[in-house]
Amino acid sequence: MVVLAREALHASVIDPVSASMNFLNEIAMRYPDAISLAAGRPFEAFHSAADIDKHIQVYLTHLRERGVSAAVSRDLLTQYGRTNGHIGDLIARTLDVDENIQVPAAAVMVTTGCQEAMVIALRGLCSGPDDVVLAAEPCYVGLTGAARILGVEVVGVPESDDGLRPETVRAVAAATRARGKNPKALYLVPNFANPSGISLPVPVRRALLAAAADEDLLILEDDPYGLFGLDDEPRPTLKSLDRDQRVIYLGSFAKSYFPGARVGFLVADQPVVDRAGRHTMLAEELSTIKSMLTVNTSALSQAVVGGMLIDAGFSLRAANQAKIAFYRQNLRTLLAALQRHFAGTAVRWNSPSGGFFVVCTVPVDASEELLEVSAQEYGVLWTPMRFFYVGGGGTHAIRLSCSAVEPPQIEDGVRRLAALLSR
Amino acid sequence: MVVLAREALHASVIDPVSASMNFLNEIAMRYPDAISLAAGRPFEAFHSAADIDKHIQVYLTHLRERGVSAAVSRDLLTQYGRTNGHIGDLIARTLDVDENIQVPAAAVMVTTGCQEAMVIALRGLCSGPDDVVLAAEPCYVGLTGAARILGVEVVGVPESDDGLRPETVRAVAAATRARGKNPKALYLVPNFANPSGISLPVPVRRALLAAAADEDLLILEDDPYGLFGLDDEPRPTLKSLDRDQRVIYLGSFAKSYFPGARVGFLVADQPVVDRAGRHTMLAEELSTIKSMLTVNTSALSQAVVGGMLIDAGFSLRAANQAKIAFYRQNLRTLLAALQRHFAGTAVRWNSPSGGFFVVCTVPVDASEELLEVSAQEYGVLWTPMRFFYVGGGGTHAIRLSCSAVEPPQIEDGVRRLAALLSR
Repeated sequence: MVVLAREALHASVIDPVSASMNFLNEIAMRYPDAISLAAGRPFEAFHSAADIDKHIQVYLTHLRERGVSAAVSRDLLTQYGRTNGHIGDLIARTLDVDENIQVPAAAVMVTTGCQEAMVIALRGLCSGPDDVVLAAEPCYVGLTGAARILGVEVVGVPESDDGLRPETVRAVAAATRARGKNPKALYLVPNFANPSGISLPVPVRRALLAAAADEDLLILEDDPYGLFGLDDEPRPTLKSLDRDQRVIYLGSFAKSYFPGARVGFLVADQPVVDRAGRHTMLAEELSTIKSMLTVNTSALSQAVVGGMLIDAGFSLRAANQAKIAFYRQNLRTLLAALQRHFAGTAVRWNSPSGGFFVVCTVPVDASEELLEVSAQEYGVLWTPMRFFYVGGGGTHAIRLSCSAVEPPQIEDGVRRLAALLSR
Repeated sequence: MVVLAREALHASVIDPVSASMNFLNEIAMRYPDAISLAAGRPFEAFHSAADIDKHIQVYLTHLRERGVSAAVSRDLLTQYGRTNGHIGDLIARTLDVDENIQVPAAAVMVTTGCQEAMVIALRGLCSGPDDVVLAAEPCYVGLTGAARILGVEVVGVPESDDGLRPETVRAVAAATRARGKNPKALYLVPNFANPSGISLPVPVRRALLAAAADEDLLILEDDPYGLFGLDDEPRPTLKSLDRDQRVIYLGSFAKSYFPGARVGFLVADQPVVDRAGRHTMLAEELSTIKSMLTVNTSALSQAVVGGMLIDAGFSLRAANQAKIAFYRQNLRTLLAALQRHFAGTAVRWNSPSGGFFVVCTVPVDASEELLEVSAQEYGVLWTPMRFFYVGGGGTHAIRLSCSAVEPPQIEDGVRRLAALLSR
């Protein structure tokens, strides 16, 4: 009888981060009645199973109106398809309308959620044994997980209270090279980062592009929250400011549509030239990797997302007004509750200008043990910030999320948190 | 301006195999009117876009009848879900009906096509730097591609004319260990293999299980073609013969339903025990890897497949009678045409008892150049067998596929091939 030893089985995969996230999931399952200020998933009442067929029909009508035959349409939805997907043109058009990003459809690769886009980009860029990726730290666990799968080292670039600083990127890149590693790319979330909530001012975005050019880094720009600012102030993506194709843009429809479709994408319009002088585009080269991971992204999920984009008139911003208003109210509610309960105490918090997350610095060790007590005795869940550091840190900080709850729960959750921290 | 050098970009990914498959795709695109005896995709006229909504409705009805609320059903289709998927119970039931495989639902992980299942299994089993996978050779390119993404070495186990021999597995495992590598698993396709077409007799299946036990190998059993035998003779999967949980079974709905759903699965019921003596199951442990690759498999694709399984009364064999008859006729047509055109010549071919593929040995170098001539001057495509060897081989052999064409095209394609080979 085969019996496998867990530690030997995948010692190199089960890292502290994933063990911690598993712990968080277990806690959430054991205390289902606790208010979750931990879950970063979108609020589900915006989703509808009825949208699935509606948007497939919109997509099929769109194809028919463009002269695509019924047989070809059927094959687009049901057969193996083009590795990089069949809705790249619709995504490119949406990026133009919403984000002022102009790229050809061939620069877009449709992926099985943004997670696969990260795996593919890292695998393509970090192919040598000494190639590493820099990442703003605290860092989204999806990026560290993707790197872990591939055996790619993530080097943290510490964020300051106002976000990633170009001079820190330069210093970390230099220190990384000094120890014999090749930093190939810099990962960051410029808008309302997960977990820090921080957004970068436009001059800093430009300065980061300049620093990346000086340090010969590509930028992996991840932008799942860009729609959800507290105000309508424009926050140009780095990709829209990018004049020398330094940015690979990573996109997700999990928040702007729904996560169950598992459709994300990457935009990689970098020119690639081979020894014979032939030119291709990075997205096309990366298709080899995509073909070895998942072959295609679900063709029917793509059709549903494609129909949604057509239905939205190619503006996610316009189509998401109700969600934008909901998340604004939630974040304002969270910030007001923190002010009411913690003003004048030793608890500090930041004030993100949008997104799903706020970080609180607390005067106690925000450990897994404390989280267990919080869940069991106080009925509130949060995320220890230490989960988001590759090299240690965040011991006295927690991430509060306000995306999957409603205002009364947010109020109640912060009240319970205050009770925990005042004991 | 960023310009990337193709060779430096992903030297470790673009290997001869993927370059060759790209060449094949390019040829197919340049000569769209050539008859393709190269394409191994399923025949598309069996697919219907209308099935999508129909099967989602069947799945939603099934949930409602089991007392699942409308909100929970909505979340199953639209929200982030359980990493290993929400139709494991339906797949387990189908495996019991069709394949006499009895496993708990928790042993099933739903994946983004079988390709992701291979990546996950390899990543879980081959975690050490010296861990390698053995594979029956000639080998399906999806397996070598998955291994390539992860930097895992594939060691070929040469098939004889009647398939994989247990004594060869033992010899290759020993030779591999002798050079300091750890063979962790053996990959094989027991039914109508891609590319060789060969099926293993039942005594050989049992002997392979015994050899794997002696050599301490897990078996990765890939079974996409098992339904499509020329006769109704039972061909028990290794998993159904497996008495000590040595087999990880890899499944696909690409041929039994449609590829565009991108739903496959793995069955891993192996017990896993950690230092503290806690027991879990391998499929549960592998979920960490799945979460870092794609988070979930498209929830709506899962719903569509789930509805199809319910609609099929949990028997893919019963639901696929029309497809089974079609592919039988195609394979018989191909074998008869080969007999008619090549009997008494230097061309030899094997006689698979089912599936999509036949291998021909030809008296010329079956090179990419010859394929180009074949496409341009004779209007027929085939696959050079050299694409399926990791360490060289197959220079004078071609794979003929009969899945994506109809009998008249098969007749005509073989006639054209005979013209090419007789020039």
